[in-house]
Amino acid sequence: MTGSLDVVGLGPGAPAHRTRAAEDAVRAAEVVIGYRSYLEQCADLTGAHQVLVPGGMGAEQERADDAVHAASCGSRVALVSSGDAGVYGMASLALSVAAALPPDQRPAVHVVPGVTAATAGAALLGAPLARDFACLTLSDLLAPWDAVEARLRALAATDLALALYNPRSSGRPWQLGRAREILCEHRSGDTPVGLVADAGRDGERVTLSTLGSLDPSMVDMRSVVIVGSAATARFGDWLVTARAAEAAS
Amino acid sequence: MTGSLDVVGLGPGAPAHRTRAAEDAVRAAEVVIGYRSYLEQCADLTGAHQVLVPGGMGAEQERADDAVHAASCGSRVALVSSGDAGVYGMASLALSVAAALPPDQRPAVHVVPGVTAATAGAALLGAPLARDFACLTLSDLLAPWDAVEARLRALAATDLALALYNPRSSGRPWQLGRAREILCEHRSGDTPVGLVADAGRDGERVTLSTLGSLDPSMVDMRSVVIVGSAATARFGDWLVTARAAEAAS
Repeated sequence: MTGSLDVVGLGPGAPAHRTRAAEDAVRAAEVVIGYRSYLEQCADLTGAHQVLVPGGMGAEQERADDAVHAASCGSRVALVSSGDAGVYGMASLALSVAAALPPDQRPAVHVVPGVTAATAGAALLGAPLARDFACLTLSDLLAPWDAVEARLRALAATDLALALYNPRSSGRPWQLGRAREILCEHRSGDTPVGLVADAGRDGERVTLSTLGSLDPSMVDMRSVVIVGSAATARFGDWLVTARAAEAAS
Repeated sequence: MTGSLDVVGLGPGAPAHRTRAAEDAVRAAEVVIGYRSYLEQCADLTGAHQVLVPGGMGAEQERADDAVHAASCGSRVALVSSGDAGVYGMASLALSVAAALPPDQRPAVHVVPGVTAATAGAALLGAPLARDFACLTLSDLLAPWDAVEARLRALAATDLALALYNPRSSGRPWQLGRAREILCEHRSGDTPVGLVADAGRDGERVTLSTLGSLDPSMVDMRSVVIVGSAATARFGDWLVTARAAEAAS
């Protein structure tokens, strides 16, 4: 008999920003699988009666395979991601692996949504994503940079607020600076930008900047970068995008 | 002495998808303000010791004014929205009202993020938002339709997955059909589409369709419509967008 797999979004970091459904899924699991730091993020929910399977960074396919295999063999499994597991998380891989199994070996799969980095970061900044926005990853590990740049260019011209995921890491040091150049071709240098690092975790940092003065070296892989639209204004320490729009963008 | 205002996202509907921070903010409030059905959504958290201020649909500015005023006068206030209060929610209005007050009358404002309809709907469909995506409202109450259409056209051509908020209501019956036409100019009629109504509530409905066969009359104002990208496939009952991209979009 097959088991079940919950693909769980743990939210931005702090336990207070997890949903009860996410907590229940982790507590009820016999096997909990996740990147090491995501297992730490839910360590208060797990115990000695559970099998914990920590994975390395970049080993997403292996984790998805392991999680689906354990569920296929009858276990109740939770595969955990930070944020929302359906946004640059593990849900896509896990569902793809499960769908490839013969029906009689396919476990029940549920995706448990969570608070994603874009809205967690936005909440700390005010309300920069109050109207239309896009989430875009600057990582070129899963897509060629040309494809990332083409999307960014189109979005820059569309005047949506943007949440940039995976903006910078030691192995991808120049992409954010290049993204800034492209954005500046279409948007004013005064456009508000908010940087949020380690939202809801120890060391949380919120920095306000502008497209013109953004310093990429202040950004790391644990950050989300939120770029305003023409309707985004700075009110003191808040970034606020007006809900109403007047003209075609 | 001024009080405080928590602008709280209650998530998609079911109590299990609320965060603890959201629940704590509602429980701790002296005054809870929200559109009638959102107060019902958190009725298990409120009690006779609290002042509940239900508002009518469309009276968002009045609610924001009331909430900020009560907090300015010293109360601890929670202003509740479904989903995430920073995404087409009350955070933008409330922060704008608070920012306009003199500093000595300005309450402390915190935005408490929640699970937004896009990712709640996506979780029920599988993982259609696993890579880059945009959230776009089809409501022309706060922006002229020309502006909505211009954005939709640009996004349709950019091949991001899309989450369409406020897709249709009795007062806005034709906009979704027009949006479908525009999307079909840029994307294949086979592009997967998922409709999620009342996510996490009684009467939850999940419907799979395609751009070519989408029937707008199946959609109401309590729905979110998720439109796949070229990387979105249907696996049985799941819609899954591949995390990796091969070529420029």
